[in-house]
Amino acid sequence: MVDRAAVVLSGGQDSTTALWWAIQKFGSENVFTVTFDYGQRHRVELECATRVAEAAGVPNILLPIDTFSAIGGNALVDAELIVAEGRNSDLPTTFVPGRNLIFLTYVAAWAWPRKIQHLVTGVAQTDYSGYPDCRRETIDALCHALSLGMDQEFTIHTPLMNLSKKETVLLAESLGALDAMALTHTCYQGERPPCNECPACRLRAKGFEEAGVADPLVLA
Amino acid sequence: MVDRAAVVLSGGQDSTTALWWAIQKFGSENVFTVTFDYGQRHRVELECATRVAEAAGVPNILLPIDTFSAIGGNALVDAELIVAEGRNSDLPTTFVPGRNLIFLTYVAAWAWPRKIQHLVTGVAQTDYSGYPDCRRETIDALCHALSLGMDQEFTIHTPLMNLSKKETVLLAESLGALDAMALTHTCYQGERPPCNECPACRLRAKGFEEAGVADPLVLA
Repeated sequence: MVDRAAVVLSGGQDSTTALWWAIQKFGSENVFTVTFDYGQRHRVELECATRVAEAAGVPNILLPIDTFSAIGGNALVDAELIVAEGRNSDLPTTFVPGRNLIFLTYVAAWAWPRKIQHLVTGVAQTDYSGYPDCRRETIDALCHALSLGMDQEFTIHTPLMNLSKKETVLLAESLGALDAMALTHTCYQGERPPCNECPACRLRAKGFEEAGVADPLVLA
Repeated sequence: MVDRAAVVLSGGQDSTTALWWAIQKFGSENVFTVTFDYGQRHRVELECATRVAEAAGVPNILLPIDTFSAIGGNALVDAELIVAEGRNSDLPTTFVPGRNLIFLTYVAAWAWPRKIQHLVTGVAQTDYSGYPDCRRETIDALCHALSLGMDQEFTIHTPLMNLSKKETVLLAESLGALDAMALTHTCYQGERPPCNECPACRLRAKGFEEAGVADPLVLA
């Protein structure tokens, strides 16, 4: 059986780096990317994902998710049940807890009839991600559930899991992914060129600076 | 913290029985039902779920899922990759492998901001279900992944897991859920009154017969 991989591609820096990692490992002819349209605020992300996949020369499958906005915004049966600390007003209505579990489960469901057993995601548990569904322990538990639940052994690869932002930049450089970074989207404000002031832009800039690498997105 | 439960309610016999079980355990004031509109062939299922929840006196939350049909039918990037045995032509285009993983993950995501930690599903691994995502082992693995991924301890209850269809009927009877069975939907043909000839109708009839109980749906 040929080893094939499906990569969760958001159009951001991390998933793009993960895509280049997958291509080096499996060969571009064996790599597919899956992008989710879940009503994200910045529609430019979807365009970036398309362009990144094109630049990588791999297929990009766009899957719609209308459930997130229903859970996040409209499906409130009883407002009094919603405990304040459980909902952060800074979160968009498309935020759902554990959304990486959903992304990976859908990718697995897409991969299953195609006999694709390798799943790749750019999540990381290091300095720039506090989400519990990005931890390796969570990913391992999910992989076990997916393998049992679909009766097919999956492997979930997380090449960025333990990397700092600086190390991710260096990995992208070593994989020849720097040019593609010009196509990615990071800015929380949804601006292109990026605002360079929001937390996401600043974190990205810090990573490139510490790596001693010029960010082609900012130069572009 | 009050124990609250969210029940996956399809509008069928099993999930209805599971709902009555949850009401007995947690009290109807602490029980919520979640129904998924994933483009199922028989739209009558959604209506049944609404009526069952009304009969139970509990809220019913309808969540849309448009992703299943995209995965099942339209998102085929390369038809030649699709190995024959991986896809069963009897399955509707809304079938996705491991769909109970998706249902439960969405219910958990809905439950999370409401501090609801008990999830209930009518899946069973006994004589009438061959789906690997219905096995207790899979449910346990998923529960672990959900608890880690959302940083909240969930419990997934599967009161029907090891019951035969006969035993499920007896459980429904003991819970006082028989009247509600007249509101449920089972028939693969989508007929009401049921066709009594399709495999689903026959399996249901066999369970009631073996239990020595009249099926109120057939009588209705």
